[in-house]
Amino acid sequence: MRTRAAVALEAGKPLEVMEVNLEGPKAGEVMVEIKATGICHTDEFTLSGADPEGLFPSILGHEGAGVVVEVGPGVTSVKPGDHVIPLYTPECRQCASCLSGKTNLCTAIRATQGQGLMPDGTSRFSMLDGTPIFHYMGCSTFSNYTVLPEIAVAKVREDAPFDKICYIGCGVTTGIGAVINTAKVEIGAKAVVFGLGGIGLNVLQGLRLAGADMIIGVDLNDDKKPMAEHFGMTHFINPKNCDNVVQEIVNLTKTPFDQIGGADYSFDCTGNVKVMRDALECTHRGWGQSIIIGVAPAGAEISTRPFQLVTGRVWKGTAFGGARGRTDVPQIVDWYMNGKIEIDPMITHTLSLDDINKGFDLMHAGESIRSVVLY
Amino acid sequence: MRTRAAVALEAGKPLEVMEVNLEGPKAGEVMVEIKATGICHTDEFTLSGADPEGLFPSILGHEGAGVVVEVGPGVTSVKPGDHVIPLYTPECRQCASCLSGKTNLCTAIRATQGQGLMPDGTSRFSMLDGTPIFHYMGCSTFSNYTVLPEIAVAKVREDAPFDKICYIGCGVTTGIGAVINTAKVEIGAKAVVFGLGGIGLNVLQGLRLAGADMIIGVDLNDDKKPMAEHFGMTHFINPKNCDNVVQEIVNLTKTPFDQIGGADYSFDCTGNVKVMRDALECTHRGWGQSIIIGVAPAGAEISTRPFQLVTGRVWKGTAFGGARGRTDVPQIVDWYMNGKIEIDPMITHTLSLDDINKGFDLMHAGESIRSVVLY
Ligand SMILES: [Zn+2]
Ligand SMILES: [Zn+2]
Ligand SMILES: [Zn+2]
Ligand SMILES: [Zn+2]
Repeated sequence: MRTRAAVALEAGKPLEVMEVNLEGPKAGEVMVEIKATGICHTDEFTLSGADPEGLFPSILGHEGAGVVVEVGPGVTSVKPGDHVIPLYTPECRQCASCLSGKTNLCTAIRATQGQGLMPDGTSRFSMLDGTPIFHYMGCSTFSNYTVLPEIAVAKVREDAPFDKICYIGCGVTTGIGAVINTAKVEIGAKAVVFGLGGIGLNVLQGLRLAGADMIIGVDLNDDKKPMAEHFGMTHFINPKNCDNVVQEIVNLTKTPFDQIGGADYSFDCTGNVKVMRDALECTHRGWGQSIIIGVAPAGAEISTRPFQLVTGRVWKGTAFGGARGRTDVPQIVDWYMNGKIEIDPMITHTLSLDDINKGFDLMHAGESIRSVVLY
Repeated sequence: MRTRAAVALEAGKPLEVMEVNLEGPKAGEVMVEIKATGICHTDEFTLSGADPEGLFPSILGHEGAGVVVEVGPGVTSVKPGDHVIPLYTPECRQCASCLSGKTNLCTAIRATQGQGLMPDGTSRFSMLDGTPIFHYMGCSTFSNYTVLPEIAVAKVREDAPFDKICYIGCGVTTGIGAVINTAKVEIGAKAVVFGLGGIGLNVLQGLRLAGADMIIGVDLNDDKKPMAEHFGMTHFINPKNCDNVVQEIVNLTKTPFDQIGGADYSFDCTGNVKVMRDALECTHRGWGQSIIIGVAPAGAEISTRPFQLVTGRVWKGTAFGGARGRTDVPQIVDWYMNGKIEIDPMITHTLSLDDINKGFDLMHAGESIRSVVLY
């Protein structure tokens, strides 16, 4: 069949909206009509050419929601008509990683996904002239119709609005999951969030949900403050207004009883390796945990003195918020529908597919939190 | 009173054994007759001048065992005649750190201890001419008699031999505790130990105690192999004999079911920041934990790509094996007395106080695992 898609023909160029060929689902695959998709920094990272593993031509997009329209042989967990969220981190429930109970990083289809292909080593997308087009993160939600492995879709309730829950396919789950699954923040904790963009806002609301007492936001832009407060931030620090952000956080978290100070948990949502170091070093001696969420530029390295770890700090990272997609994503959709978490104020712009490049422009200009394309 | 002690008069010089003055215990302090003390790399680190916080003249030594001979006002938890192990990491059970339940790094007397002083800000030791001598790590076990805060001694059973259990005051607890308290290694785990000196051997026996399946030792010296095997090592890698020690460990830990490979836990006992990086990167994607035990040179920094953490590895450190001294040390003494752990083969040399500098020579020559001074 044919479908309309925004194709990344080469690095650093705008996407081109065009008709492409899409083959039907093979064994263990499903075809999904994408109803809405967010535009994420990771799409921009790849489109810009900065991603050393970026492949072209490809159909980007990994933050979608839609409806199953066709299933291939052997598919049992979803059927046509089911509402689903595509998962760039699948959940096979059968590999060593899934069965470890210790990680969400399913490895069942990792190799082919990284090559921009379906598990059988081929692509379902091609140009009208027959040139293959690569899949992206196993999702390719910048196409109105796409094909995914069955293990890479999460079935969700049918009353949830596509244009909001698509964000659960990446940013919402990444931020909230980092708090709940990776850091396992407990009630009464003191936490710091570096970077108050979309991911940072979701970390903030994750912290509020987890019952944190002090939720400190750090950003170079004072304009981020009102929205961050809306999502649970209790204290704001602009590093431009203080000599040493680490010391500022240590002082802010001291109590009459605890004169050591430091955050119980910190989260880097900037991708800046210098900020990652501050995020570690502002945590509490003895038990502070720092979680890296942001994606650093290729080749960038984090560093610190080992003394920081020997004195009890823990350095961790998270991918997709440590969430097992098929298990946890439907629950986060429920939380949204029940009002436990908010998404609507973060969807600042909705666009048509034809205007998708405007979404990237808004991101570059820092004018959007999330732009969503509605098909 | 007067006592014999080995005094570090200045950095880089041998210790000088001499008579010194020792004041009796003040409020909350105890005087202990040291019966035996190990000579640890940390003593050597300070004596050499490499420790930027080293103070002189001082009485080094932090790995001792002895008998309480006098207690100051207000001391209730020990009495004269009690057998004790001095604790460079005290346990007050009242500070924010002790009460957190998350760390062993008691902060009750941290500031004065770092200044080589008792909690009231003075020293109990002085030269015969009256010049004050600094305490060291709150212990100064290179003196036949020493004074310590009550919260810095662990009361232990009286049938345990001083010349063996002194090692529990540092190396044994550090190595075993890193496994049990910090990593919390579970039965069936695969673990790697970098550096098969005294700490490394204790990590090995900690792993055996915890029920690890695969216990890989890494050392540049093949001669370490027999003793390491005695303490539980199941596989040995000499980095000189392989291109890439990380890849070697990943391959060794792969199974037919788990083709990702990597250690569940790794421990750096070298203090070399390049090795610390290997130790992190050889752990399993998704859940591998690497624990830094070794003390790095002043100013040295660890580094890695954040991707290593984002894909699920955790970087931690440990001090005194995460052990709460007064609570956990008596239990480790019991384990030794019950045969659950071994110490005797690691005490390779016993010396008199007059020969204490020979202990440092043996350490430099790599001929000892642990030298113990018997008073
Ligand atoms: Zn994303
Ligand atoms: Zn899996
Ligand atoms: Zn030591
Ligand atoms: Zn304490």
